[in-house]
This record gives sequence, C-alpha cells and structure tokens, in this order.
Amino acid sequence: LTYTSPIDRFAPLGIDSAPGERAPSPTVTGVDFSHGDVDAFPPAPGAFAAVAAAYDAGSSQAYSRYRGHLAIREPLAGRIAEFTGAPVHPGREVIIVPGTQAGLFLAMSALVEPSDKVAVIEPDYFANRKIVSYLGGQIVPVPLSYENRDAPAELDFDQLNVAVKAGAKVILLSNPNNPTGVVYPERQIRGIVDLAERFGAFVVVDQLYARLIYPGHTLTHLRACGISTDRCLTLLGPSKTESLSGFRIGVAVGAPDVIGRMEQLLAIVSLRTAGYNQSALDSWFTEPDGWLDDRITAHQRIRDDLVRILSAADGFGVRPPEGGSYIFPRLPELIAAPTRFVDSLRERAGIIVTPGTEFSSQHGTSIRLNFSQDHDRAVRAVRTIVDMAKELAR
Amino acid sequence: LTYTSPIDRFAPLGIDSAPGERAPSPTVTGVDFSHGDVDAFPPAPGAFAAVAAAYDAGSSQAYSRYRGHLAIREPLAGRIAEFTGAPVHPGREVIIVPGTQAGLFLAMSALVEPSDKVAVIEPDYFANRKIVSYLGGQIVPVPLSYENRDAPAELDFDQLNVAVKAGAKVILLSNPNNPTGVVYPERQIRGIVDLAERFGAFVVVDQLYARLIYPGHTLTHLRACGISTDRCLTLLGPSKTESLSGFRIGVAVGAPDVIGRMEQLLAIVSLRTAGYNQSALDSWFTEPDGWLDDRITAHQRIRDDLVRILSAADGFGVRPPEGGSYIFPRLPELIAAPTRFVDSLRERAGIIVTPGTEFSSQHGTSIRLNFSQDHDRAVRAVRTIVDMAKELAR
Repeated sequence: LTYTSPIDRFAPLGIDSAPGERAPSPTVTGVDFSHGDVDAFPPAPGAFAAVAAAYDAGSSQAYSRYRGHLAIREPLAGRIAEFTGAPVHPGREVIIVPGTQAGLFLAMSALVEPSDKVAVIEPDYFANRKIVSYLGGQIVPVPLSYENRDAPAELDFDQLNVAVKAGAKVILLSNPNNPTGVVYPERQIRGIVDLAERFGAFVVVDQLYARLIYPGHTLTHLRACGISTDRCLTLLGPSKTESLSGFRIGVAVGAPDVIGRMEQLLAIVSLRTAGYNQSALDSWFTEPDGWLDDRITAHQRIRDDLVRILSAADGFGVRPPEGGSYIFPRLPELIAAPTRFVDSLRERAGIIVTPGTEFSSQHGTSIRLNFSQDHDRAVRAVRTIVDMAKELAR
Repeated sequence: LTYTSPIDRFAPLGIDSAPGERAPSPTVTGVDFSHGDVDAFPPAPGAFAAVAAAYDAGSSQAYSRYRGHLAIREPLAGRIAEFTGAPVHPGREVIIVPGTQAGLFLAMSALVEPSDKVAVIEPDYFANRKIVSYLGGQIVPVPLSYENRDAPAELDFDQLNVAVKAGAKVILLSNPNNPTGVVYPERQIRGIVDLAERFGAFVVVDQLYARLIYPGHTLTHLRACGISTDRCLTLLGPSKTESLSGFRIGVAVGAPDVIGRMEQLLAIVSLRTAGYNQSALDSWFTEPDGWLDDRITAHQRIRDDLVRILSAADGFGVRPPEGGSYIFPRLPELIAAPTRFVDSLRERAGIIVTPGTEFSSQHGTSIRLNFSQDHDRAVRAVRTIVDMAKELAR
C-alpha cells in the first residue's frame, strides 16, 4: 500500500545542468556562465524605485487582474507595438507573466494537447523541448545550421515543411536564438510566416533578447511580417538586457484567445505576477537616452574578446553571436567526455557552463556561456577554459 | 486552415467570479470582499526591508536554486518544524514557491495523472476543483457539514472511505477550510491520516490560514499526526495573515520526492520564486512580540460584528469562522437568483463578494466574504448586504 509516483511526464525534466543549479565551489573563485551577473550589469534604472513605490501604494498594487494591472498594460502595449512594428490591444492582446519562462509555459500549455506535433528548432532554449515533452506533445526537430560563421545561419526549411505538412500545430523558436546568438534573417522569418499561414500552424517566438542586437544585424519581428494576429504569440521580458531577472516579470503579446487561456491557466498556476513587481515594467523601453546603446556596446566588447580568444585556440569552433549574450563554442576533441570536461571546469576552476546536451541531442560537444559578466573575469575564465581543453586535447 | 483551440482542459477554468477579477464600479465606494485589504492590515513588519536589502545585495539574491535560496530555506525549515510539530529537512523537504497557489498547482501536478481519482472537500477553495479538472483527474466529492453552528463541523467519513477504497490517490483539503472558516477537529485529521495510511493515499493540506486561529480553537497540523513523511504535503504562506500576497511567496513542506518533482516542474513553469522577494520569508514567524495576537484580535472583532449582524438578519445562516478571515453566509430566499444578487451588490453598492458556486455545486445560495478589511467599512457593507437582501426577499 504505497503511493506510486507518476514519473513519466517528469522524466525529461532533469534540472541538474540547469542554470543556477550548480553552485561554484566556495573554495574557488570562478565565473558562473550559466546566467548573467546582475552585479556586472546592474538592473535598469528606475525599476526598483517603481516596485518600492507600488509597495508604498498598498492594496491597489498588491492585487491585479490575473493578466496584470491595466494601468501598466496600457502604456506598455503602446511601447511594445512601436518596438515590434504591429499594434497591440492592451485589453485583449497582452498578459503580464511571472517571467518570460512562465509566458512560454502558459503559451505552450494553451496550445499543445497530448500527441500534438510541435516543430522545435535544434539547438534552441532547453525548456522548449522539456515543456513540449511534459505536455505530451511530439517534438519534430528542425535543424538550424550556424557553424559556418561566414554565412547567414540557415533554418532547415525542407524539414520545417515536412513538419508542418505532417500536421505540426505549433512552430516554436527563440530569436535571437538561444544558445547560438543567431538572429534569423528576414527572409527566414517571412518563410516561417508563409508556412504557418498556408498550413494553419501557430507560431510562438521567444524574443527575450530582442533588444540586445549587435551593429550590422537587424531583428525581424515576427509580428511585423504580416502574420495573422490569431496565429502568433511573441514573448518578451526585461530579465536579460535589463538585468531584471530577480523580479520574475515578462509579457506575452498576441492572439487574444491564447492570451485568454494563458490567463485562465495563470489563475490556477500562480494567480498573477507579483503585484508590486509588475511596476518594474513601467520603466521598460523608457530607459534614459544612451542606456541601451551603452549596454549593447559593453556586451559587444566582451563578445569580441571571447570570440577572439576562442577563435585562436586549437580545435574550438565559435560563431560570433549577432544578438543576445550567449556564445556556444564547439569544444576540440578531448580525451574526456564533454560532460566530464564541464564537471572539471566547475570543480577545478569554479567555472560553470551549460552543457550543449541541454539544447539538443546533436550538440553535446558544445558548451554555452552567458557572457553578461564582469569583462576581465570573463576573459580570464575563457582563457582557463582554453588552457584546460589544451591539457585534455586528444 | 485555421488553428483549432484546445478548449477542453480550459473549460472548467472560468475566472469571471474570481477574486480581483471584478473591479468595483468607480462611481460607487464599496468594499471588495473578494480578497483582503492590505491597507487595513498592512504587510508584516520587516518584509519589504528584507526584499530591498536583497535587491541591494545583487546577483547572489537575484538567482537561486529553483527550490529557493538555501540560506532562506534553512532557518525557515526550523521555524516551520516548530510551528507544525514535525521535523523539516531544509534540503529535501521544503520548496519556496511563487505563492501558495503555485504550491498547490505544482503539488497536484506532481501527484495527479489523467483519470486519477482525487477526494475533494465540498465546499473548499475553488482552485482545488479547477486544478484537478485541468489535470484530467476525477473529482470524488466529500461533503463537509458545517451549517449547524452549535456542533463541530463534520467531514463525511463514509464518503471519504468510499472514495479512498475506490482508489482515490490523493485527498486534498484546506485547513482552516476556505470558505467556511472551519478548523477540523483533531479526531478528523487523525481519521484522514488513518485512511491515507491504510489505503495508500497521499494527503495535500493547504494550511494558508494556519496562523489565524481564534481563541477556543486549535489547529491540528496534519504533519503532527503521525502520517508518513512520504505521504503528505503541507502548503503554507504569508499571503493572508501577514498580508504579503503582493510578493507571491509561499512554501510547501513534505514528501521529498514530491518536492523534487515540484522543483522540476517549477523550472519550466516559472524558473523560481522571484529571487529578491524570497527574502520576505526571513521575517516570517519572527514578527515582533504581540504582532500576531493583535492581528488575530482585530480580525476576531470584525468577525464578531459581521456574524452578529448576519445572525440577526432574517433568513441568513452563518457559522462563525474558527480560523481565517472568510465568512460564508447562506442567503435568504430571494426573488432573484443568487448570482443576480451578487451582480446587484457590485453594480448598486460597489460590494464585491465571491458566489458560493465557486466553492461547490451545492453551495450556490451562499456567498464568501474575506473580512480582512477596514472594520467600519466592512460593517457598513454587510449592513447594506442585509438591507438589499431584505428588499429582494421572497
């Protein structure tokens, strides 16, 4: 007479290699590349003051409609419309969620029923595959070629065609791509829209890094490419570029009926985004002049230094990211398994990286580094990675 | 070629009558009894200062393990062990969640597979039924008799026996009961433990109001009744008595494998409880001497006034709550449907109450009021409810 665990849905939800789960050894000072360092890049100005003011305002700010305070959604909808190049109805087309991660979970839960096919890019953000598996959906992998750094990255449209024709209901992607930093060329986003419209698929795009785009590249917003409003959802949030991850706030904009189901589900999942924290969104997209440019420039300098070090090292392969703060270098051939190398980095040097296996079954010899870090420490840590790989080179 | 909505799982998730969803008319000053007023009962002292300090501390506080900062879980586990009368292992038996609501969703998701039977008390917190329905579980209702105010409330053990013998895997209840304010007598909690142990059921108890117990009553903690650690989970949180709802923080303590699955799921649902907000738990259970007693006394006075007014009114039935800040009066027979009466209260008097239909299909003629409000305004509003019922009496 013992209680039996329902382990099947949970089997794919391993968290051992997830960001923040592996603490650096307290005896070694290293760098935790599994997430950004909000001390190196502090939270956007004004955010905490707005949260404090909301706390002081009291009851009216503690509680909100499940989809968030209307007084915050209204001006935010206008700013997101301007940013993404398509109108946003503040009442019907936007929901404030407890982090962009929650937006992703709620959206996919609103869209995917057991056995539904979902086109998932490989490599892409690790939670994409986990969420689809948890919901009982069938992952149809669509490869992204990015390793040739001298050519635009290419989504495998033959495979995407096959997936959508075989009935994939949802196409899920991050843009900029996590972990590679690829910004999809406009023709590819338009190609996705064309397929979705022709075969009745729904497109969910995670644009969490949409504001951190490096000079020479342009983010094409899915919403600006003529896709029907009822066929797409865009996830955004201030957790990355703006360093507001500690507040757990994000937004989803798009199809009103999907937003409606997300709100219904949020009501039983977590009621609402923390009432006071929602106010941190008031200063989002309205930062002081030059703030965003400075932040991009600072990340670009770190990117360039790390890419230079890795490009010069024997056997490493690295594509300079076009957006975001991730690099996803391929490791040289080592005498140890890549997972063992990742463990050694942590144990011997206090350096935490995310193994490529988290992002696809095909990328086990790559590692992901979030380089939103103190510049000098990041450079030293990447030199250590190169040195340790040299020791273990086959 | 249109996208088809997966509406089935979402059909039971109506949110129209949910707390906070119905705003009072701006032209009428009333009382929103659908949730507590944190202006009338301000957040517990020290909580916001701890959140602000966490923000100032930076990166180490922005991110935590998915189950929460260990430095917060460790002392908290000791305080919860003392409060609930059974040891709590800080590493394995406690998870910090984005509100007690999230604890409930994560726990039930970790325990219930499609077609599993779940014993659900009627009446009980509205999300209990919604979550079980959403997960595809089968609700086995177990009536709670509470209307005879001169006798202890009685859970229907015959029905609970039938449910558990028929294979109900989980027994879910709130104690104090939401919406009635019933505190289960010790022999009933022990009866639940006995059944769970004999038939291999798991018990989830939502003790969100466990600190707001009125003189003459004692809360029996499930954890203190000899139930196996791997067969129970207790949900707690500072959202109610301590008025910290605006931070969305709560905890679950209990079976390590269930806590583990909750953490795996939290990782894809919302990553973690907002990193800074977790620090509001540092002052929980360590409030200044007398603070909790004063809060209980102030609520008791409001309770007594509202119960007196409703007891004296024709046709109302009300049991004085033994814990928590809800009363759940039965309305007199009216010429209008109870839902119409609820609408009138909102439209004509700006008074928001939660219809009894939210708590069970059998209690449509009752309404729930959260009386954690300004005392005088609550009294005036309940007099208005009585007067409007008189107008509409059959």
